[in-house]
Parts: sequence; structure tokens; C-alpha cells
Amino acid sequence: MALSGGTTDRGSHSMDKSITLPPDEIFRNLENAKMFAIDIGGSLTKLAYYSTVQHKVAKVRSFDHSAKETDGDLLYEISVQEEITARLHFIKFENAYIETCLDFIKDHLVNTETKVIKATGGGAYKFKDLVEKKLKLKVDKEDEMTCLIKGCNFVLKNIPHEAFVYAKHADSEFRFQNTHPDIFPYLLINIGSGVSIVKVEAEDKFERIGGSSIGGGTFWGLGALLTKTKRFDELLQLASKGQHTNVDMLVKDIYGGAYGSLGLTGNLIASSFGKSATTDKEFSKEDMAKSLLHMISNDIGQLACLYAKLHNLTRVYFGGFFIRGHPVTMHTITYSINFFTKGEVQALFLRHEGYLGAIGAFLKGAEEDSKLLRPNKVLLLSH
Amino acid sequence: MALSGGTTDRGSHSMDKSITLPPDEIFRNLENAKMFAIDIGGSLTKLAYYSTVQHKVAKVRSFDHSAKETDGDLLYEISVQEEITARLHFIKFENAYIETCLDFIKDHLVNTETKVIKATGGGAYKFKDLVEKKLKLKVDKEDEMTCLIKGCNFVLKNIPHEAFVYAKHADSEFRFQNTHPDIFPYLLINIGSGVSIVKVEAEDKFERIGGSSIGGGTFWGLGALLTKTKRFDELLQLASKGQHTNVDMLVKDIYGGAYGSLGLTGNLIASSFGKSATTDKEFSKEDMAKSLLHMISNDIGQLACLYAKLHNLTRVYFGGFFIRGHPVTMHTITYSINFFTKGEVQALFLRHEGYLGAIGAFLKGAEEDSKLLRPNKVLLLSH
Repeated sequence: MALSGGTTDRGSHSMDKSITLPPDEIFRNLENAKMFAIDIGGSLTKLAYYSTVQHKVAKVRSFDHSAKETDGDLLYEISVQEEITARLHFIKFENAYIETCLDFIKDHLVNTETKVIKATGGGAYKFKDLVEKKLKLKVDKEDEMTCLIKGCNFVLKNIPHEAFVYAKHADSEFRFQNTHPDIFPYLLINIGSGVSIVKVEAEDKFERIGGSSIGGGTFWGLGALLTKTKRFDELLQLASKGQHTNVDMLVKDIYGGAYGSLGLTGNLIASSFGKSATTDKEFSKEDMAKSLLHMISNDIGQLACLYAKLHNLTRVYFGGFFIRGHPVTMHTITYSINFFTKGEVQALFLRHEGYLGAIGAFLKGAEEDSKLLRPNKVLLLSH
Repeated sequence: MALSGGTTDRGSHSMDKSITLPPDEIFRNLENAKMFAIDIGGSLTKLAYYSTVQHKVAKVRSFDHSAKETDGDLLYEISVQEEITARLHFIKFENAYIETCLDFIKDHLVNTETKVIKATGGGAYKFKDLVEKKLKLKVDKEDEMTCLIKGCNFVLKNIPHEAFVYAKHADSEFRFQNTHPDIFPYLLINIGSGVSIVKVEAEDKFERIGGSSIGGGTFWGLGALLTKTKRFDELLQLASKGQHTNVDMLVKDIYGGAYGSLGLTGNLIASSFGKSATTDKEFSKEDMAKSLLHMISNDIGQLACLYAKLHNLTRVYFGGFFIRGHPVTMHTITYSINFFTKGEVQALFLRHEGYLGAIGAFLKGAEEDSKLLRPNKVLLLSH
């Protein structure tokens, strides 16, 4: 999850801040079941699992003091009630540690009632046999795009402050959005290993209209090759300390200043890594990581704009685990979009950015369970 | 120039195939002048210079044999005429060798009549003092976009077989286009150190509608960092021998096959360099160079499509020295454009791809000289 305090990192996997599920009926029926879903992507396996929390809540009611018989004592009625809150928890694992993920599921989430595991992402196909063998459950595959959009629609409509705008120089860096029933249409740019660009027009009307191979996997892969740093979060840290201007060719490096008649300021990047071929000096890891981050973020920002313009969309949400609340990334993407669309298109980030697919797969399972418990309704089992 | 046999490489600079100038009046007046122009970009300095070639041409005319007086001897009239052809020659220099370029100009092109040197590109500003000092000429700066488009319009209208389509699996790999008076509108994607995207609607009506920092300088710079190979042409050679599938994450690496419902075949690149972070093995220079070439070419191809679609353009020409007739690059860009636009937009390459600006600056000079020699016309000197 994007913001500080939300992630607990244990090397091979990290836990992110859980969400309170809305008090919808489908979540109440799950009380005693262990419900979970996985989304196995190109690089990361995301797990969403349900649990209930019981709390004792003290409710205080004060009495009307107007009756003159009282002698000044305060009168309250205190009652203690048990409330059950349903929560959805999140952990992500690097695919190299997928067995650790499956061990966790086996040890903590599977019980004798569990028969299937909801799985989405390419890995639901690629790792089907491994998962079924290890967990002794049937893998119930759900379409990646369907789960992605289902999850995205859900968080936008139900989770307060899920979406936010990033404004680097404003009083408040993060401007959280309230939930809104009227979320359509919008563009979702999901930046996982690669990028998927999805136009969403209604709850069940969406289309993957484009994509790009320059995504999170590229930052991770090229970053690892250039800096010998293999951890994604360490690459982001390096980038935050770098000076990209040592590595990139700027407009002023070509013109000696701005290219005024075109409105290109001197500090704009003309060519990413443009200085790297014609000099013998070594570049620092920080500088190269920063250039790489700018290069990828700017490219994604531009593609986002062009697709938004082509399809007359004014809201763009960013999902996937590329962004991770990194200020440089969010600023670059936001600036890019404001620049290219002259402020007509708004860039919004999501706190549970990379868990949208897992949330969607979980919801699919919850809906089906809910139908199963009402024998008079038609059973709809997904394949 | 793109195709084999046209380039003579001497390390710091290379000569490319000259063109015959059309017999327009403005070129005839230049007969005794040394006319040349330079385009100094972010990485390369391009020089176009004019010269005349005198050839003796034998013309043979045969007589009518029908008169019965002849006794069987063949009768021909042979006359020898002198023809003067005006040609435009091209050399490019890496900016590190700009002084070599200026020496060439000083030794071969400047004469006592030369007062100014036509220069375009950012370097016309950045290197103005160096050029003026070395050549003892005034630098006459011309706008980069203006020269680019002027040069492009000129070659499309006047130079036969300048533009061509690349068809990898066809009988004829290169399909050359004839000159056409009706060339507008079109989209020019100029891939130099960075990328400029220009919509051209008429001779003097064009607009730079976009650009990208992921261009030739990125291929050169990132390629140099990854492979320790510093020569651009060597990087292209490495790429032609590489297997990008070792380095890139394909759809089948995520799904175990195709993502059928979305029409994404298993061999599509899902994430460029997506395999590089999660493995300890070393990648070959060839494989990394190939991945890089695909990454950049695909990105440019996609941007080209999106801009073409946004502006209802069906012809896209590629300029700049990124392509250099490399089959992988041309195929990737062509395939990309066919794929994204379902064949509606055509990708065309140019034999003098990187010299468009120099040609345009030269033409500016030729037009002005032509006006200078006609005292009754208004003098228009550019600044």
C-alpha cells in the first residue's frame, strides 16, 4: 500500500494495511468461512484474505436532565455490545517465494470446509498444478481483467480515501477522495510487470484498450542490471537520491537553453540516458535509477494521456505495484498528465493499487458463496 | 542512408549516398558557389553540401533505313554534350568530432565568397561561438522544425524512391514509393537523440504535436551501459544477433501460453527486461541489445499510432538516424503500427532519414541566394 506505516516488509513478502469491508450481506455470510483469493502476476503473488474481528463496544446514552426530581447527578446508561467487523487483509510475495505464500495459506487459511481457491492473474494458469498439489484444493480460475475491474470498482465505491491526488507543492501533499457512487467512466492504468490500459464504462462494461511492455518489471529488471541492486524497494530508494540530469540529455544540453518557440523549457528531458554513450565517466547507481524512473514514469504518463484523449476520459486511476507511494513517480506521472492534457485529465492513485485483482477474485468468491447459501437462487460457479 | 552500399564509415564520421538535385532554377544559380548547411543535434552533426558534376554524355541518333540508296551500312549520328548535374552530398559526424566537421568545411567548402553558414538544430545555438570562431563565418540560425519539414517535403516531392515500406516476409523486402505531388497531410516521427512528432498539413503548415525522451540517444546510452559497447552501429549489430526472449518477460511466461480472451499471443512481450531482476544468471550483450531495440521500437511504434489516430493521419514517415535500415527496427515499428491500427496507418521509412534538417537548411540558403541574384525581388534574409 502506498503510504507510510502501511507496509511491513519481511524480505520475501510484505503485508499491507487491511480494509474494513462494508456491512454488505455477502460479507456477513462469510463469518465462519476462511475466504481468500490469490492473484499471481508476472513478478508478484498477491493474497487477500478475510477475517472477522470481534470487539466489545461501549455505547453510552445520556438521559434528559430536565426533570426537576434529579438532584444534579449525571445519569447515563452504559451498554456493552459485541460488534463483528469484517476485514480484508493483504500480503504480497515475490513469485520466487510462491511456496512460502502457499505454506501461509495452508497453515492459516485452509480449513476442512475449503474446497477451492479463487485465483486470478496469469499464474492461475501457469502455477495451477503447483497450487492444487500443495494445497489439495481445486484452482478456480478467474479472468484477470474481470477481477482487476471488479476490485477497482469496489474500492472506489466502498473504501473511503482509497483514491488520492498527489500535489507536490500544495499544503496537503495527498488529497484523498471520498467514495462516490458515480465512478464511471474512467481509465485504469494497471502497472504490474507490464502495463494494461483498461477503459471502464459500467460495472460490467470494460475493455482492455491497450498496454505497454515498459512497466514495473522493466524498472526492476533494467534497474537490477544497471545498479546490481535486486530489491525493488531499494531501487526506489536509490532513485530518490539521484540526479537524473547527470545521465539524461536535457533540452538545454542540446540548445544551450530552452527551445523557446516550441515551449520546451531547458530542463525538459530530451533524451533519457542520452549522456551515457558519449562519456567515459561512471554514473552513480542513484543517478541511473533516477533516470530510469523518470523514463518509465514519463512514458506511462504520456500513454495514459493519449488513451484518455482518444476515448474522452477525464479520470485516470493507477493500479499495480509500480508506484508504491514514491513521490518522484507520483509527481512525474501527475505532472506529465497535467502537462499533456493542460489540466483536463486528472491522475489519481490508489492505496491498494496492486491488490485490485486479488480483491476482485475475493469478491467473486464471496458472491458465489452468498448464492450457495440461498438454495432458491441459481448457482453460478465460475470456471 | 538506410540501405547497403550507401554508407562509408570512417569511425568518427560517415558519408552517405548523395542525391541528384532536380533541375530547379534555384539550384542552377548555385553553380559556382559552395553551398552547404549543417544540422547540429544532440548527438550528431549532419552536413549537406552542394557540388556540380560535369559529365560528357554521348547521344546517339539513328537514321531512317528506308531509303534504298543505302547499301546495308548502319547510319548513326553521335554527338557529345556536356551536362552539368547538381548533387547534394551528405556526411555525419558524432558531436565529439565536431571540430573534424568544421575542419572539413573550412578545407573544402568555404571560399572567399562565403559569408554565412546555414545552421539548424540545437547546436546552431549551443555551438554558435565555436563555429563562428573556427570558420570565421556568421552562423545563420534556422529553426529546427522548419528545416526538418522543409527537407522532408522536398525529398518526398522530388527524390524518387526516397520513401519506402518495409515488408519482412514479402517477395520484395523494400517497396519504394514514387514521388508524389500530393503528400499532405502526414505525420513525421523524427527519431534523433530524442523523438519529435510533427503533424504536417501543408508546405508551411506544420506543428510539433508531441515527443518522447525514449529515442536514439536512449538506445545508444542504455546500450553502452549494459553492453560496454560504445559504437551505435555495433550496438545494432549485437541486437541483430540476440534473443530477446531470454531477457524479456513474454505473455507465455506469465500465463503458460496465450492470454486468449484478450487476443494476446504467448510470444508478445509483456514486460521488457522483465526476467532480469529475478535471476542471477548473466545475460549476453546480444540479448540485452535486442531487448532494448524491441523496447524502444515498440514504444515509438505505439506512440506513432496514437498520435496518428488522434489526428486522423494515415501516413507516418520516420526520420532521424535511429533506424539506419536495421531490419529488426523497421519490422518492429511496421508490425507495431499494423497491429495497433489494424492496417489503417502505413509506416514509411526514408533513405535520407537523418539529413532532413540539413537538407531543409540548405534549401533555405538556396532560396535566399536565388533571391539575392534577382535584384528586383525583395531580399529576405533569415536571422
